[in-house]
Amino acid sequence: MGTDVDELVERVIAGDRRAMARAISLVEDGAPELEALSAGIYGHTGTAATVGLTGSPGVGKSSLTEQLVRAARSKDRTVAVLAIDPTSPFTGGALLGDRLRMQTHATDPGVFIRSMATRGHLGGMALAAPEAIRILDAAGTDFVIVETVGVGQAEVEVAGATDTTLVVVAPGWGDAVQVAKAGILEIADVFVVNKADLDGAGEAARDLELMLKMGASREAEWVPPVVKTSAATGQGVDDLWSAVEDHRRHLESTGALERSRRARLLAEVETLAAQRVRERIRVALLADEGLAGRIAAREVDPYRAASMLLAGLGA
Amino acid sequence: MGTDVDELVERVIAGDRRAMARAISLVEDGAPELEALSAGIYGHTGTAATVGLTGSPGVGKSSLTEQLVRAARSKDRTVAVLAIDPTSPFTGGALLGDRLRMQTHATDPGVFIRSMATRGHLGGMALAAPEAIRILDAAGTDFVIVETVGVGQAEVEVAGATDTTLVVVAPGWGDAVQVAKAGILEIADVFVVNKADLDGAGEAARDLELMLKMGASREAEWVPPVVKTSAATGQGVDDLWSAVEDHRRHLESTGALERSRRARLLAEVETLAAQRVRERIRVALLADEGLAGRIAAREVDPYRAASMLLAGLGA
Repeated sequence: MGTDVDELVERVIAGDRRAMARAISLVEDGAPELEALSAGIYGHTGTAATVGLTGSPGVGKSSLTEQLVRAARSKDRTVAVLAIDPTSPFTGGALLGDRLRMQTHATDPGVFIRSMATRGHLGGMALAAPEAIRILDAAGTDFVIVETVGVGQAEVEVAGATDTTLVVVAPGWGDAVQVAKAGILEIADVFVVNKADLDGAGEAARDLELMLKMGASREAEWVPPVVKTSAATGQGVDDLWSAVEDHRRHLESTGALERSRRARLLAEVETLAAQRVRERIRVALLADEGLAGRIAAREVDPYRAASMLLAGLGA
Repeated sequence: MGTDVDELVERVIAGDRRAMARAISLVEDGAPELEALSAGIYGHTGTAATVGLTGSPGVGKSSLTEQLVRAARSKDRTVAVLAIDPTSPFTGGALLGDRLRMQTHATDPGVFIRSMATRGHLGGMALAAPEAIRILDAAGTDFVIVETVGVGQAEVEVAGATDTTLVVVAPGWGDAVQVAKAGILEIADVFVVNKADLDGAGEAARDLELMLKMGASREAEWVPPVVKTSAATGQGVDDLWSAVEDHRRHLESTGALERSRRARLLAEVETLAAQRVRERIRVALLADEGLAGRIAAREVDPYRAASMLLAGLGA
């Protein structure tokens, strides 16, 4: 198995598309080879610019992604799109978005497109997405776009696992309170008001700018610009590209890129370690019928039970 | 401090309202007294019937909660309402709902109403809500209603931490795919189509029934009924009350009540234990500047870093 993974790592680093696809499948499955894969590619990562797109269903994220792919290709940069379909924690099923439009790029060797769902393995997308991004990065991709289906907390986490996070809205997409509640104001590096040809686009942009002004009390290093686009016509996509590049330059010139990558990596290590221990805790708890019975009989309260379990694990 | 908590426990068990409020504040704050409090009250819990209400903002959950309070009081049962305002992971602020209508019950000693937010402590609402419910339970409350503000995953978890979960929708509240994605079909014990006086209420109810039929392939023990209500006029509230009581009888007669409570308790213990270890992991990671530097320098990959951390913790 070791040599198989070594070979896969080599092929990924060489930019072999089938190897990239296979490696991402290992991530999706939470396969045991993942550790060796991760160790093998890690030293080759860190050069890709990563961009996350999130926003409610129907705001046009897929069309916008396609426009960004076009823009990147017109500048001769290689692109990968990772379309994340978060699995419901209940059904175990993934709802795949419409990838048909992307078929335009199906024959372009500079474009790699992949949908991904977690199949219920530990940590879910919060761990799978950064690892998949690193595979694309190690393969020499210049520009990795991570597109999420919805805008729940899981999606916010995934889209936030990139250097530059775009939050896409559309006119009439909801009131200020909803945005504030979703916590997306805080993760946006660039706001996109898509479907700018519709009524209310100007208003939506002004609302966002107002909210940003209200939110940015402290001396902000970066104030997220609000860019109006129409992914259908291509209008505003150049401005969006410029905004993404401006943000990148800001990250690089201030050292924020290194700082935020470091912080994200440490958070990932923490999550990984915590998930492993959690698995041990689960096994220990399932094995201890006596303890479970005493909890259910209201003899041992949850806090004490947790202490007893951890003591048993030597932790 | 021990004696203070002992006294608080005694007063909670005696049903002292100020003590109940104080105890819930300790839960909110993640105060160190929590362990002693939990241990003290735990043996007095398990008698309250707990009901969770979740659903999108604007479907009328608060009005429905008030109608349920009325119904319970008309049957001479004591009621507590725990209104959960989930904190955005980013802002740390809580958006409090309008509790004005509840002032009708402000002078009724059989009604206890409390809003709750987590203040960023470990585990968030997933741990705080069950503990707060137990405080109300230990105080001798017959009927505990947990109402969430929205319908995100956190809210689904909180509402699911009850014996009977009501999912509230309103006509025109969204298409089938959205429901399926939110994972709320699976947690509902009773569906409520509120604002039944509006156009489309019958259609919404039929859509739900169809989805339930499609989802319930295996021999389901309980098929969630769909109840139409108008919280504004009180129409259908008796039917809703009956549905809640039917579900309770089902839970008790099949042993499902004991099974699901046991499963929820074990999940809670697992989360508690995992959170504690996670805190230790975080501290160890923060303290290990060398490891952090090697991760950032792409020398040690996240998986290996996690293993090294855990080895260092003796876990």
